[in-house]
Amino acid sequence: MKTLLLIGMGAGDPEQITVQAINALNRASVLFVLDKGPLTEDLVRLRLEICERYIRTPGYRLVQVDDPQRNSASASYAAGVEDWHVQRAEVFAQLIAEQLADGECGAFLLWGEPTLYDSTLRILDRVRAKGCDDFDYQVIPGISSVQALAARHRIPLNLIGQPIRITTGRRLVAEDLDNVVVMLDAHCAFEAFIDENVDIYWGAYLGIPDELLMAGKLADVCEPIKQLRKAARLRKGWVMDTYLLRRRPSA
Amino acid sequence: MKTLLLIGMGAGDPEQITVQAINALNRASVLFVLDKGPLTEDLVRLRLEICERYIRTPGYRLVQVDDPQRNSASASYAAGVEDWHVQRAEVFAQLIAEQLADGECGAFLLWGEPTLYDSTLRILDRVRAKGCDDFDYQVIPGISSVQALAARHRIPLNLIGQPIRITTGRRLVAEDLDNVVVMLDAHCAFEAFIDENVDIYWGAYLGIPDELLMAGKLADVCEPIKQLRKAARLRKGWVMDTYLLRRRPSA
Repeated sequence: MKTLLLIGMGAGDPEQITVQAINALNRASVLFVLDKGPLTEDLVRLRLEICERYIRTPGYRLVQVDDPQRNSASASYAAGVEDWHVQRAEVFAQLIAEQLADGECGAFLLWGEPTLYDSTLRILDRVRAKGCDDFDYQVIPGISSVQALAARHRIPLNLIGQPIRITTGRRLVAEDLDNVVVMLDAHCAFEAFIDENVDIYWGAYLGIPDELLMAGKLADVCEPIKQLRKAARLRKGWVMDTYLLRRRPSA
Repeated sequence: MKTLLLIGMGAGDPEQITVQAINALNRASVLFVLDKGPLTEDLVRLRLEICERYIRTPGYRLVQVDDPQRNSASASYAAGVEDWHVQRAEVFAQLIAEQLADGECGAFLLWGEPTLYDSTLRILDRVRAKGCDDFDYQVIPGISSVQALAARHRIPLNLIGQPIRITTGRRLVAEDLDNVVVMLDAHCAFEAFIDENVDIYWGAYLGIPDELLMAGKLADVCEPIKQLRKAARLRKGWVMDTYLLRRRPSA
């Protein structure tokens, strides 16, 4: 059998990695880094820095792979995701077959939390379903950007005794506004709710030196956040942001 | 100024602590451990073991305090929480005034994630509102039991592109059943939904040697989980469990 470790590397801050993740990095002889193109060059480099910092014995093999991208021009979101997962499962099956010998341990280095809006677990299910099942796997949790955001703004994620919703920019709706964390929003979905009486706690590049934070009444900070985000994106070539929206208590 | 660190210690596994949390433990000269009575003796002991394992220089001062308990006989849940927070704010204000000198750094050792169903941040707001504001504070994220649960069952927390709900046993409703994580459930709230076509992924004592895991169709494993939970609770004197409910896709 081969072993695969899905390692949560934290949200960006190299100190936001667990002892369990460091031990897992040290256990693996092959490290898979999936490269999503030039926009994530920074993120690949940051991952390699984390490896250099925490891996005690040299000699591990680094396998950098071009990760297929989701075709956002697909007929539907679901169809786009399906195609993309099929392609990724092919890439993963090939990696496992060609890059890992029997008995060897390989690791996927994943940002944030491997079970939160990350498709690696689902891709491995597909790989097994294709008949490539000569591997076992483990999940090593990591600090997500949701946690990094709440920590930097020093706010509880939940209102007292109330549920928490985490959603994507695509799915954000007015009913969520009592208290919702939004991830994976490429289009400033918060802007649609500028007339609502809500606060926003926003963060980008959480945990890395470029970190940006802004908070306030949405109507007041919506435009400043959009400007800041746009300028940062132009400067760095990419942006990853997360935010919490919370309705103000009525007076 | 005094400094307070709210340190997420992880869900139970001593390896599920971050480098940032370890550095924070080492920075603090006073460690506050809140004792919630005999039921959590195990948890206090486990925290002390983590300190012994990771604190590099001896000489820190350990302050163990009886944490006021919420009176569950209160007229309403909200009133019970309000009373409890008032009492806790008094305890915290006294700790900060009497146990920390100017310039000193103290740490609260918190299970899981300090921003997820933990009232410490809110209590500190109350302490400041009382006029005791000679301190600054930081939040150090930690791996929550939600993450430990998903990692052990090796399941994504979200369905593809779908929102995630995290709620409490008290608040669980049928509308949540598509995909919901339940925390703080003292009364097996899942039992009410035994006739629904849902799977449950359940875990107790996550990350510690007593860890219990069970998963399956709710109708099949509801009774086994209840029995296991009851027996464990009798044996150990306390139980902390977390679970995910997910509706099965219709055929």
